[in-house]
Amino acid sequence: MKRAEKGKVYLVGAGPGDPDLLTVRAAALIETADLVFHDDLVAPEILKLARKGIVRNVGKRCGSKSVTQHDINELLIRHARDGHSVVRLKVGDPMLFGRAGEEIDALSAASVPFEIVPGITAAFAAAAAIHTPLTDRRLASKVIFLTGHRATKEGTGWGHLPADATLVIYMPGSDYAHLFTQITASGFGADTPCIVVSNVATPKEQSLHTTIGKLAQTAPLPPPCVILAGNALTENS
Amino acid sequence: MKRAEKGKVYLVGAGPGDPDLLTVRAAALIETADLVFHDDLVAPEILKLARKGIVRNVGKRCGSKSVTQHDINELLIRHARDGHSVVRLKVGDPMLFGRAGEEIDALSAASVPFEIVPGITAAFAAAAAIHTPLTDRRLASKVIFLTGHRATKEGTGWGHLPADATLVIYMPGSDYAHLFTQITASGFGADTPCIVVSNVATPKEQSLHTTIGKLAQTAPLPPPCVILAGNALTENS
Repeated sequence: MKRAEKGKVYLVGAGPGDPDLLTVRAAALIETADLVFHDDLVAPEILKLARKGIVRNVGKRCGSKSVTQHDINELLIRHARDGHSVVRLKVGDPMLFGRAGEEIDALSAASVPFEIVPGITAAFAAAAAIHTPLTDRRLASKVIFLTGHRATKEGTGWGHLPADATLVIYMPGSDYAHLFTQITASGFGADTPCIVVSNVATPKEQSLHTTIGKLAQTAPLPPPCVILAGNALTENS
Repeated sequence: MKRAEKGKVYLVGAGPGDPDLLTVRAAALIETADLVFHDDLVAPEILKLARKGIVRNVGKRCGSKSVTQHDINELLIRHARDGHSVVRLKVGDPMLFGRAGEEIDALSAASVPFEIVPGITAAFAAAAAIHTPLTDRRLASKVIFLTGHRATKEGTGWGHLPADATLVIYMPGSDYAHLFTQITASGFGADTPCIVVSNVATPKEQSLHTTIGKLAQTAPLPPPCVILAGNALTENS
């Protein structure tokens, strides 16, 4: 097992939740690091792999203690300079909707050595869980990853999207009526298959197979969710 | 370690090449399976994890022995029914451009128990290797995975794609002049950053930072490659 090196920061993808879906590299780094700074959504089963007393939540939602991105950057840099091996643990993959750019820029500017370790992002864990490939030679030759969050916040929508794509909507929120509007405004028909996967790769995992047209009348599943939509999503047992 | 179960088929993502980028689950299954059937591009370092004499290449390119998809389906079903634990190993993630659908359909129809284990797909390994996030809050809120292969074969192009996306082109081939035409026809400007990553997560890994406009005059890197293009791809050290 390759141990975490002293004086170095590791930006590590924690995957969707199941410790068995960590990469071998990520598991070794979490087990051997001097310090682990993690986001809110990282599963407790994964944090248990770390040595006792070294894990700290720097998630944006951790109650009254507001940890800014600047604070996180400074923590990583200071502890690496103090000679510690530091794991920065992000849910899924750090390079997709993970704001890793700001940490990479700060570490680079401070000349602190760092390494990025990819993780299984929710889209692939969801596709595996529901036995449904994201692409199909006849029906979907593209996969588009986007967020409901951004669309809602800015109110600008996603624009027109190619019909031969499978959409994977991260952070869809619970306003499914709005999502219905977003998806149809992008050019997808109401009869397009749509699958909501909640708490993928955890004991609370559940999924719902529906269509875009029926989404507006659907009760939201518990977060975190990922929503897949597209004509390739035929149901497999 | 959870061992591979008898009488069951595992569709497993082998990741990009480095055995450390297997998931913990995938590594355990490869180490304990009775049989491993793999595609051509799976790295020899990963196949070495399996027990001796149980590994078989069923890749489409394996010389004169032409193994059809039907043959592969029959092999998986027969060996599971004979009471073996069977790993079907695909490079990257099995649910992305991996034709897993046909194997899933065959296993379902034959009522053979199966499980799908996700893998790190090349896009995320490449982003980690070049220290460049695929999304950026200001510049890219979408990521689109597509293939050069399909576009070339059908000659129809990708259609118009949203400008606030990062493109990840799998199987780009070596005709970079054609790729230049494809990408610009989709609406991206010639000055859009473009990064070619060859043999990611292997000892032969190399990358090239250029622009879409210069791609046509660029000597192709050795396959397998993945090409990233988009305005979020600013260079990080």
